[in-house]
Amino acid sequence: MERLAVDMDGVLADVYEQFFRYDERDFGKRRPPEEVIGVEERKAFPYINEYVYTKGFFRTAPVVKNSVEIMTRLNEKYEVFIVSAAMEFPQSLPEKLEWLKEHFPFLSWQQLVFCGSKTIVDADIMIDDHFRNLDNFSGITILYTQPHNQLKDAGRHKRADSWADIASLLL
Amino acid sequence: MERLAVDMDGVLADVYEQFFRYDERDFGKRRPPEEVIGVEERKAFPYINEYVYTKGFFRTAPVVKNSVEIMTRLNEKYEVFIVSAAMEFPQSLPEKLEWLKEHFPFLSWQQLVFCGSKTIVDADIMIDDHFRNLDNFSGITILYTQPHNQLKDAGRHKRADSWADIASLLL
Repeated sequence: MERLAVDMDGVLADVYEQFFRYDERDFGKRRPPEEVIGVEERKAFPYINEYVYTKGFFRTAPVVKNSVEIMTRLNEKYEVFIVSAAMEFPQSLPEKLEWLKEHFPFLSWQQLVFCGSKTIVDADIMIDDHFRNLDNFSGITILYTQPHNQLKDAGRHKRADSWADIASLLL
Repeated sequence: MERLAVDMDGVLADVYEQFFRYDERDFGKRRPPEEVIGVEERKAFPYINEYVYTKGFFRTAPVVKNSVEIMTRLNEKYEVFIVSAAMEFPQSLPEKLEWLKEHFPFLSWQQLVFCGSKTIVDADIMIDDHFRNLDNFSGITILYTQPHNQLKDAGRHKRADSWADIASLLL
């Protein structure tokens, strides 16, 4: 059975929607989506460094559309691990655990990995929205489209614009 | 640079000393060490499942003798990762982070991994006190002696009875 490493923020958890919501709270109006396309997350949202350290930010993130259904099927076909580079935000660790238990109850704690660097991950396939995690990975790599990577050439990585695309690639 | 994965509980953190202290608190006398040699942790300490879910258990664990000094030197020679199968005890995650920051401040959050199963770890050398983590690892394996594994044949694993032994093997 092939081993599949799935990123959390920006792939399962819709942190961009959280950024938009927190930004709207702070500036009084919802930012037009096109304003953040092709812009690094930290540049697109001025107060992002406060948001990601705010209690509840990760716990209340919405689920990325269709990810639950497709992950249910992937979990039957692959040895799935959820790999989150969460160590930078210590307060996020229990929140992420609770979030996964709520939204992906079919995954067990044995399938979770919280790390600082993903270089230590041994898997066959990796899904992530950040080049820094995919570029050093030797297996098959799938770049999940988010505004920050949308205008970049995916290079050797396959690009998935949606979970339907992931299903097409892996199921 | 070779990558070295170091276990936390029973290798860096002296959880046995914590078991002895909690056990003494509950039963009124310190258990003689020879009583737990060759006995599984869960059988040696009747209330262990309460201890490991107790707030503060991991945060206040003593440091294993000489581990700080030897780890300082290993950290210069190897690409060190601390890999803890901590996902079973969610409350332990922030405690373990704080514990590491206090006792091993020369390690960065990039070097930490909390997982459920260590099968996902890609490294060259692994130090652990549990056969279940070492047996499926394809690199060099060092079994750190603790009462629960003391009477077992180390098999293909090298055995280290102390951090001085680890220094002899790796420095």
